[in-house]
Amino acid sequence: MTAGSMDANEAEIRARAVAAAKGDLPFDTLLINGHVADVITGQVRKADVGISGPIISSVHPRGTRNDAHRKMDAEGRTIAPGLIDAHMHVESSMVTPRTYGNAVLARGVTTLVWDPHEFGNVWGTTGVAWAVEQARRAPLRILVLAPSCVPSAPGLETSGADLEARALHDILAWPEIHGLAEVMDMQGVIDRQDRITAIVNEGLVSRKPVFGHARGLVGPDLNAFAAAGITSDHEVVSGEDLKGKLEAGFFVELRGSHDHLLPEFVRTLAEFDRLPPTLALCTDDVFPDELFDCGGLDDVVRRLAKYGMPPLEALRAATLNAAMRLGRHDLGAVAPGRRADLVVLESLRDFRANAVLFDGQPVSPSGDRRDSLEHETSAGLSIAPVVPEDFHVRSELRHVRVATIDNPRFTRWGEAVTDVLNDRVLLPADATLMAVINRHGAGSPPKLAYLRGWGKWKGAFCTTVSHDSHNLTVFGSNESDMATAANAVLEMKGGLAVAANGKITARLPLPVAGLVSDRPLSEVASGFRAVKTAMERVVPWNPPYLVFKACFGASLACNPGPHLTDLGIADAGTGKVLASPILGSA
Amino acid sequence: MTAGSMDANEAEIRARAVAAAKGDLPFDTLLINGHVADVITGQVRKADVGISGPIISSVHPRGTRNDAHRKMDAEGRTIAPGLIDAHMHVESSMVTPRTYGNAVLARGVTTLVWDPHEFGNVWGTTGVAWAVEQARRAPLRILVLAPSCVPSAPGLETSGADLEARALHDILAWPEIHGLAEVMDMQGVIDRQDRITAIVNEGLVSRKPVFGHARGLVGPDLNAFAAAGITSDHEVVSGEDLKGKLEAGFFVELRGSHDHLLPEFVRTLAEFDRLPPTLALCTDDVFPDELFDCGGLDDVVRRLAKYGMPPLEALRAATLNAAMRLGRHDLGAVAPGRRADLVVLESLRDFRANAVLFDGQPVSPSGDRRDSLEHETSAGLSIAPVVPEDFHVRSELRHVRVATIDNPRFTRWGEAVTDVLNDRVLLPADATLMAVINRHGAGSPPKLAYLRGWGKWKGAFCTTVSHDSHNLTVFGSNESDMATAANAVLEMKGGLAVAANGKITARLPLPVAGLVSDRPLSEVASGFRAVKTAMERVVPWNPPYLVFKACFGASLACNPGPHLTDLGIADAGTGKVLASPILGSA
Repeated sequence: MTAGSMDANEAEIRARAVAAAKGDLPFDTLLINGHVADVITGQVRKADVGISGPIISSVHPRGTRNDAHRKMDAEGRTIAPGLIDAHMHVESSMVTPRTYGNAVLARGVTTLVWDPHEFGNVWGTTGVAWAVEQARRAPLRILVLAPSCVPSAPGLETSGADLEARALHDILAWPEIHGLAEVMDMQGVIDRQDRITAIVNEGLVSRKPVFGHARGLVGPDLNAFAAAGITSDHEVVSGEDLKGKLEAGFFVELRGSHDHLLPEFVRTLAEFDRLPPTLALCTDDVFPDELFDCGGLDDVVRRLAKYGMPPLEALRAATLNAAMRLGRHDLGAVAPGRRADLVVLESLRDFRANAVLFDGQPVSPSGDRRDSLEHETSAGLSIAPVVPEDFHVRSELRHVRVATIDNPRFTRWGEAVTDVLNDRVLLPADATLMAVINRHGAGSPPKLAYLRGWGKWKGAFCTTVSHDSHNLTVFGSNESDMATAANAVLEMKGGLAVAANGKITARLPLPVAGLVSDRPLSEVASGFRAVKTAMERVVPWNPPYLVFKACFGASLACNPGPHLTDLGIADAGTGKVLASPILGSA
Repeated sequence: MTAGSMDANEAEIRARAVAAAKGDLPFDTLLINGHVADVITGQVRKADVGISGPIISSVHPRGTRNDAHRKMDAEGRTIAPGLIDAHMHVESSMVTPRTYGNAVLARGVTTLVWDPHEFGNVWGTTGVAWAVEQARRAPLRILVLAPSCVPSAPGLETSGADLEARALHDILAWPEIHGLAEVMDMQGVIDRQDRITAIVNEGLVSRKPVFGHARGLVGPDLNAFAAAGITSDHEVVSGEDLKGKLEAGFFVELRGSHDHLLPEFVRTLAEFDRLPPTLALCTDDVFPDELFDCGGLDDVVRRLAKYGMPPLEALRAATLNAAMRLGRHDLGAVAPGRRADLVVLESLRDFRANAVLFDGQPVSPSGDRRDSLEHETSAGLSIAPVVPEDFHVRSELRHVRVATIDNPRFTRWGEAVTDVLNDRVLLPADATLMAVINRHGAGSPPKLAYLRGWGKWKGAFCTTVSHDSHNLTVFGSNESDMATAANAVLEMKGGLAVAANGKITARLPLPVAGLVSDRPLSEVASGFRAVKTAMERVVPWNPPYLVFKACFGASLACNPGPHLTDLGIADAGTGKVLASPILGSA
C-alpha cells in the first residue's frame, strides 16, 4: 500500500480519533493558538486542532480542550493544510523520492502526484514497480501514476521498454497506482492511432483518472483530445490557453516551472468571479539547485501570491481542489476526519513553514543525508568506452549537403553545405555536433546531427538525462572533447559531464538509472550548479530558447520538428527518421 | 452495470467522439445558437455543442461546424449541464424509479444519487439488488448507494432485514454501488458502538464515499462523527448549522425539502467570498403531489435562485460540485469528453427546461404511463385482517397511569391517568391512539401508544409507509375506524387509507413493497392529494410540527425521544422499549 492510503489498522485509528474527539481520550497532539486557514469557506478563524494518530480528530474553539499528550503552540500563526503537488516528476530533481521528500516536506508539501515517466522509459514495468517501492519509503505521501508514454515517440526512438495497453492494464490494476499519467502522444490520440487509443481506454476502464498533456492544443484538436476521455492538462502556455483549457473542462494543474507565465495566469483567473474548482497547482519539473534553494510546490504558492493571487485561493487550489480531483476525501483541508497533514505558517501571503505535521507526526529537519538504496539500480547503461572517431560523420564525397536541426527548443529543419576531408565530414559553419547512443547496447554506431542556432561551443557536454528515452547524448564543438565527456559519464554509470580542452571541467554522477543520485540534495544541487557554471564557459546561452535546459530536450522526439534520437533525426510530424544527416553531394 | 457507467463499447464511443471533434465524421446532434452556462469559469458564452453518441464531442464557436445528422436550434436559450440530485430516496415519491425518472428527466434532472433505504429496510439485500435493477431500467442515470442503516434503530424495531457489516461488505463490492448511504445512527458512531462502527469501516475499506446524516450535531459530537470517516451531510437546519458543517469539512448536500430554511442558507453562503466546492444540492424527499406539480431538483435550483442565490452558483452546486464529489469526471459540465446530459433553458434564473438531452439523446415527453414491473413485488406484508378489539389496551385495574408520547416530530415522554371499563383502557383526554403491527408476521399483538398534542381526531389513518421499518401503522380516535383503515390497507397490499364514521374516505394503494405504486405519477399524486384532503377532515393540522407528514415519522425510533415501533414505545436515548403504555395503577 502507498503511504497514506487506507491503513490495515484503519478501524483502530478511527476508533481512537472518535474517542479523542468526544473527550474520552486525550489527543496525541493539540495544536493551540493558531488561525486555521479554511480553504472550504475561504475564511481564517481562530481554532485549536486536536490530532489522534494520523487523523485530525477535532477542530474546536480555542482553549476548549486541554488534554493532550503533546501540545504545540502556533503562537498566533496560520495553520494550513499540507500542499498537494498535483503533477510532478521526481526524476527532474535528480535525487531519490526519499531525498526529494525530505527536501519539500519540511516546507509544507505533504503529497506528491508522481508520474515516474523517466524511470518507466528506462526500466519499463520494473521501473514503475521500483517507483512504487520508493514512494513507500518516502517521508511524505506519494501517489504514483502509470506512465502512459513509454516510449513517448514510438518508432522514432528506442526506450528501455515498450509499455503497450496490455502492460498498462496490469499496472493500472495495482492498488498503489492512482491513474494514467500525462498522455503526451497528443497527435496519436487526435488521429485515433491504435496504440495510444488502446492505452487511454485502459485508463478509462480502470476507472482511475486519465491525466493529460495538451500542449498548444486549441479548437478541434483540443475538443478531440478531451473527447478521448483525457481530463487534465498542465501544459498551459498563456492566459488565453488557461481559459481555453478550463472552458474545455480540463482539470488544470497550473505549473510553476515557467515562472514568467505566472503573472498572466493570475490576471486571467482574476477575470473569473469564482476560482474554478478544477484548478490545482503543480511543479512538473524542478532542477536540483532550484529544489535546494527555493523548494517545491511551496515556492509555486509563494510566487502566485507574490504575483497577486489571493493567498487563500492559491492555497485552495494547492490543497482542496487537488484532493477533490483525486477523490481523496481525507486530504486537502484542516477538518476533522482528514489526515493530519498540517503546516504552521509565518504568514499566509509568504508561504514559509514554521512547523509541519505529516500524518499527525511533527516533521523534524531530516538532515541532508545520503539515501540508502536496497537494490541494484545501475541497470541500463550498456555502452563501451568511446573514441573521438565514433563521432565522425563519414562520406566518400568531396562536398556534401547535410540536414541541420535549426533553433533550440522549437526546432525546424535546415540544410548546410560542407566539405569532406579524408572521408570525414567537417562541421558546417556555426554548427554544433550532437550524438546519441542507445543506452541499452541496442544501437551502433552513434547517430549524429548538426545543430544550428546553439551558439559557438568551446568544448562538450554529455548527459544520460535526455528526454524521454534517456539515451547517452553528447553535444560539442569537437569529437575529442565529446569523447572525453562521454567516457566520464560512462565511468560514473550515468550523469552529466562537461569537457573543454581535453579535460573534464565539471561532472555530476547520476548512478541510479543514469537519472538520479543517491547522494544528499546539497551535493547534487552543488554538482548541478557546477555543471551549469562550467557550461557557461563552453557556450554563451542566449535566453529564452538557448538555455542549458535545452540540452535535456534536444532528443524529445514526441515534440514537433526534428530531434536526434538513437535511431537518427526523427520528425514526429512526418513519422520519418533520417539515419544520417548526409543528404547528398553538394 | 448502472446506466451511465462505463459502457462495454466505450472504446468505440470514444473513437467516434474524437473523429467527430476533428471533423472526420459529422456529429450525431449539433446544438446551435445557444449560450453555454459554464459552471467551471462562472461565465456564459455563445457556443455550439456537437454530440457524438452519448458524449459531448465538441464545444466550439457558433457556426464553425455545420455537419451533423440532426440539428437542434437553441434559439438564443441557455445550455446547462444536466442536474445531479446528490441525495434522494425515490421511495418518498411513492412511484417506481422509472416513473420518477420520467417525471424529472424532462425537467433537466439527469442523475440521481439514490439511497434505497426504504426498500432495504423492507427487503434487505434483495431490496438493494432490486433497486439496482430498477435503476438500470430508469430513463436517467441513477447511482445507487448501499443503505447503511437497516434497521435504523437496531434493537428498537424489527425491520425486514438486519444488514450488518458482513452484508454491507458484499453489497459495497458490487460495481453498481457508489458508496455507503447516509449513516443515520449518529449516536452509535459517536459512542463507537460495534455494529455501526464496523459498517462505517466497511465503507472506508471499499474506498467508496461514506455519506452522512449529521442532524443537529455540533461541537465534540460533530467532530467525532467526522473523525469516524463520514464525509457528508444533508440535514442542515440553519445558516449557522450550514456554516458549521462546511467548516467541519463535510460535503453538504443542501436539501430543498425544507423550503423555509432556504433563504437563510442563501444568506449564509453569500457571506463566503467563494461558493465552497464542497456544496451540492439535493431533494432528499419529495411527495408525489409535489413531484407532479413542481418537479425534483430543478425546483430546488429554481427556489434558491428566487431567494437570491446567483443562478450560476446554484447550477454549479447542482452539477460540477456534485460530479467532483462523486469522482465522475464525465459529468457536471458542458464540455467535450463529458456525457451529453444537457438542458436547454428559457432562462438561467428560472430553471425551466425547454429541451433536455440525456446521454446525447433528446428526451421526449414520456407520457404518464404505468410502469411494468417484471417481478413479484408485494412481498413483505403478512398480516391477517384486524378487528377493533386488536387495538384495545387492556388492564384489570380500575384506573391506570399510562405513558404518553407528547408532541409530534420532536417527541417527549408524558404521562396521563385514565379509566378502565370492562378491562378496556379508555383513551385519555386529548389523546390519539397509535398502533404498530410488524409487517412480516413477526409481532403480535399490535403495539399501542397514546399520542398527545396531535389535535382532536375524528377517524383514523393507516399507512405502510412508516419510517424506517415500514410496519403497518395506524392512528385514530377510535378502534373501529382504525380497523377499517387497516383492513383497507391490507386489502391493497400496502398503501395509505383514511377512515371516518366507519367508512373509507380516501385510499392510495402502494402495492410495491407497501412503499410505492406502479401506477402513473398523475394517479399517485392525485391519490395522495385525496388522502391529504380526507385527512384534513379527520384532524386539524397545526403547523409547523403537527402536519400530515408527521404520521410517517411517528415510529422513527432512531430519532431522539419516544416513538412507537412494532416492539413498543422505544427511546433511542435510553435504548429502552416499553411493551405496553400502562405504567401502573392510578
